[in-house]
Amino acid sequence: MNSIRSLPNHIAGFGDVTPYGGSCLAPPPRRAGAAPVSKVGSGKLLADLAAAFDACLIRDGATLSFHHHLRNGDGVLNLVLAEAARRGLRGLTVAPSSLFPVHAPLVEHLRSGVVGRIVTAYMSGPVADAVSQGVLSVPVLMQTHGGRARAIESGELVIDVAFLAAPAADRCGNLNGVDGPAACGVLGYAMVDALHARQVVAVTDHVVPYPACPIEIAQDHVDFVVQVRSIGDAQGILSGTTRPTSDPVGLAIADSAARVIEASGLLEAEFSFQTGAGGISLAVAARLRETMRARGVLGSFATGGVTGYLCGMLEEGLFRSILDVQCFDLAAVDSYRRDPRHMAMSASLYANPNNRGCIAHELSAMILGAAEIDLDFNVNVTTGSNGRILGGSGGHADTADGSKLAIVTTKLAAGGGPKVVERVGCITTPGSSIDVLVTEAGIAVNPRRKELASRLADAGLPVRPIEALQQAAGAARTPAAQADGSGRIVAVVQYRDGSVIDVVRLPA
Amino acid sequence: MNSIRSLPNHIAGFGDVTPYGGSCLAPPPRRAGAAPVSKVGSGKLLADLAAAFDACLIRDGATLSFHHHLRNGDGVLNLVLAEAARRGLRGLTVAPSSLFPVHAPLVEHLRSGVVGRIVTAYMSGPVADAVSQGVLSVPVLMQTHGGRARAIESGELVIDVAFLAAPAADRCGNLNGVDGPAACGVLGYAMVDALHARQVVAVTDHVVPYPACPIEIAQDHVDFVVQVRSIGDAQGILSGTTRPTSDPVGLAIADSAARVIEASGLLEAEFSFQTGAGGISLAVAARLRETMRARGVLGSFATGGVTGYLCGMLEEGLFRSILDVQCFDLAAVDSYRRDPRHMAMSASLYANPNNRGCIAHELSAMILGAAEIDLDFNVNVTTGSNGRILGGSGGHADTADGSKLAIVTTKLAAGGGPKVVERVGCITTPGSSIDVLVTEAGIAVNPRRKELASRLADAGLPVRPIEALQQAAGAARTPAAQADGSGRIVAVVQYRDGSVIDVVRLPA
Repeated sequence: MNSIRSLPNHIAGFGDVTPYGGSCLAPPPRRAGAAPVSKVGSGKLLADLAAAFDACLIRDGATLSFHHHLRNGDGVLNLVLAEAARRGLRGLTVAPSSLFPVHAPLVEHLRSGVVGRIVTAYMSGPVADAVSQGVLSVPVLMQTHGGRARAIESGELVIDVAFLAAPAADRCGNLNGVDGPAACGVLGYAMVDALHARQVVAVTDHVVPYPACPIEIAQDHVDFVVQVRSIGDAQGILSGTTRPTSDPVGLAIADSAARVIEASGLLEAEFSFQTGAGGISLAVAARLRETMRARGVLGSFATGGVTGYLCGMLEEGLFRSILDVQCFDLAAVDSYRRDPRHMAMSASLYANPNNRGCIAHELSAMILGAAEIDLDFNVNVTTGSNGRILGGSGGHADTADGSKLAIVTTKLAAGGGPKVVERVGCITTPGSSIDVLVTEAGIAVNPRRKELASRLADAGLPVRPIEALQQAAGAARTPAAQADGSGRIVAVVQYRDGSVIDVVRLPA
Repeated sequence: MNSIRSLPNHIAGFGDVTPYGGSCLAPPPRRAGAAPVSKVGSGKLLADLAAAFDACLIRDGATLSFHHHLRNGDGVLNLVLAEAARRGLRGLTVAPSSLFPVHAPLVEHLRSGVVGRIVTAYMSGPVADAVSQGVLSVPVLMQTHGGRARAIESGELVIDVAFLAAPAADRCGNLNGVDGPAACGVLGYAMVDALHARQVVAVTDHVVPYPACPIEIAQDHVDFVVQVRSIGDAQGILSGTTRPTSDPVGLAIADSAARVIEASGLLEAEFSFQTGAGGISLAVAARLRETMRARGVLGSFATGGVTGYLCGMLEEGLFRSILDVQCFDLAAVDSYRRDPRHMAMSASLYANPNNRGCIAHELSAMILGAAEIDLDFNVNVTTGSNGRILGGSGGHADTADGSKLAIVTTKLAAGGGPKVVERVGCITTPGSSIDVLVTEAGIAVNPRRKELASRLADAGLPVRPIEALQQAAGAARTPAAQADGSGRIVAVVQYRDGSVIDVVRLPA
């Protein structure tokens, strides 16, 4: 260009001048040495995952992230790690928001050294078993869903490449979860990864015309798009834990929990509510639905991993909106697709304790499960009675901390052992954030909540000391092996704020 | 809590251990010394702007940002700066995405020293006049809309406090532009400020029940909420430049521009289109509408500051979607409110040249205005023939650079002087990114686009050398005062990539 002004080298009050050079300067690369991302047209579309590994310069020791919106139907993590193994990579850190039985092939990558470290908020199935048995020399970092978002936003967890399972994507990387054969709905966990990872690869089996609509994650956060045959099976998002119970004992517990909420004084205008996945939790929702109808309560919002049951309550006018980080069944996907009151939220908006206020902190009542709970109301959803990992916090510790009323519901002798114990084998959620325990043998209120205990007693609810529930549950359990502090640490349980609340050890 | 585990001080493969301390650690403050933000309930609601200045610790020299979605109806910038003046603050940097005549009170703050510097993408009216006359000792930084997003995301422009004019907000700071008396629609410019400012204050005249729905900017990015009597007048978003022309000369130019697009070969499936605000531009849209109907073209997207006219084309099925950074009239607000194909985009997604691909780079055709254009096709939309600032790039340079076909339309002798000149008084958009000039006296094609020139000539369009159009426009204009490089610099014109493309000077 021959008409550029003659410009001073320095302008007072502005600084040194870089004169316009005739075309737009290339943007800085996302990662030193990585392939430049085409800013125009179809340049982001890569032939296969191998090309994505090349383009992103994935090397030994890289941190790769994944999200679990397809839950036990996810196909992307296995595809990506198979490619990593094919390339002979070593020592990768894998940071999925959760791991399920479908991720069994990861076990071999742990054994072979392709993957050296796991950071996640939940793991069940073969990977959890292998970790519990010491397959890794480095402990797994078990976060909460909100803690994971906090760690990513703060730079504590740096993701080199985020692989996003995208049910629908266009050639520029705009994507959503409501179209395509594996439509799983809201992509709340993926949103945080997309915003903060150094590089982002959308993996899709459904390329749609530009622009993907509605856009859930936009092209300005996606470096590459890879089309594969299948990203997984959306049917897999419906796990066993998202169906309401029909068991009479479970229903009785749900009824008590609902009565606790009613007696708490919270079930009035602006009531907000989350159920964890679980049969009793959903039965509580069913019971509340009746009461809200009868009382004419208009709630503020329902939230969580969202089920069709909650969507029905929205449609009925019992809540003003749904805030959804992840759909737990296909009815919820459909609701999200068509109802603007059913809104997506990122994992950070959901539960990050360090942002400017997360939704979990606005909850009136939260229904939680427990593998075991102890006399200090500490809850374990991380390990089983055999000391092996069987889950993890997910949003458990986040919502227990954030909600005004955190209720743990459990059958006293479910899962092969007493549920109320002297001391839990692993602390996932501190007792200070649990308000009430509801069992078939009565209700225990955290001694910190004296006023609540009075309300419940006044309402005629069977409030008992937690020690009495422990006795009803059977003989006190022997403390789990790790309590003696001698076995090797296989997992570090990180509280949502980044502190360490417990560890999981190999048997001594 | 008495049941916390005894934990090692250090865990191999994890690092030093901060044990859980009994409650969630407080998040780090957004700004050293600033008031902590309540994470729960109504703690973000402040009584007035004075309380927001206190809470945000706004001091002399702070950088405050604003957005221009209410355009010439905006009331928030004036309210905030009145409070700054009341407090006796000095040397503030004000970074609004644009300034309009309604912001006339800012002139007094420039004179008094309350505001010492302006960073913006567009200014017209009394503030532009005062700047042109040298009211500030430090040059104004004139960015592009995309360049502003780039500067904010890269940390080049650090915003201490972003004030968001929020047509509707809830007590936790979730907000949207579709409800309330000043509903102005999409808040695309505000989105970037909200994500990156150190602190964010939502200023609203319409507090809605929690949660605001639909959420455009979420509570995890908003520190405080202030309710005021009025944030402005949504009628002000409809400025004179958003009405289609009815002038016969203008209509003839629009007809030619549409024929240029048709002849270019771009008006086929996946066509995408943006009109700048302007009567001729909208007349081009009207003409294209007829052709798209007649040819059965399904376009990909229309974009820009969006008018009801484009929304009508969406509804008619001529485009698959609209990507909207800002609504230019109330019909567009209404379309955005009810049609999910009418999607919001942030200013970064719109036009930031340094993200992973902006929408402007996907444009087929862009219709642009010009205050003047020169023989190298450089365009000035920053200064008038008197050398004074009358506008600025907005998205002009961004979309000219990004689009496949950038067409400048202008009447040859509009605005009091010849439009085609030897050399523009100020370069806003480099000629290298302008493809075609359309006037009532003929069409000039940039010599870089020989193939395009042939296509247009083959289609029977009156292609002429730009020199011929200059002659038709009248005598060559005297170069503007700043070309001699002796007057004081009152504004630096920054290209979208951060380089400097020109300066505006006081007359020597």
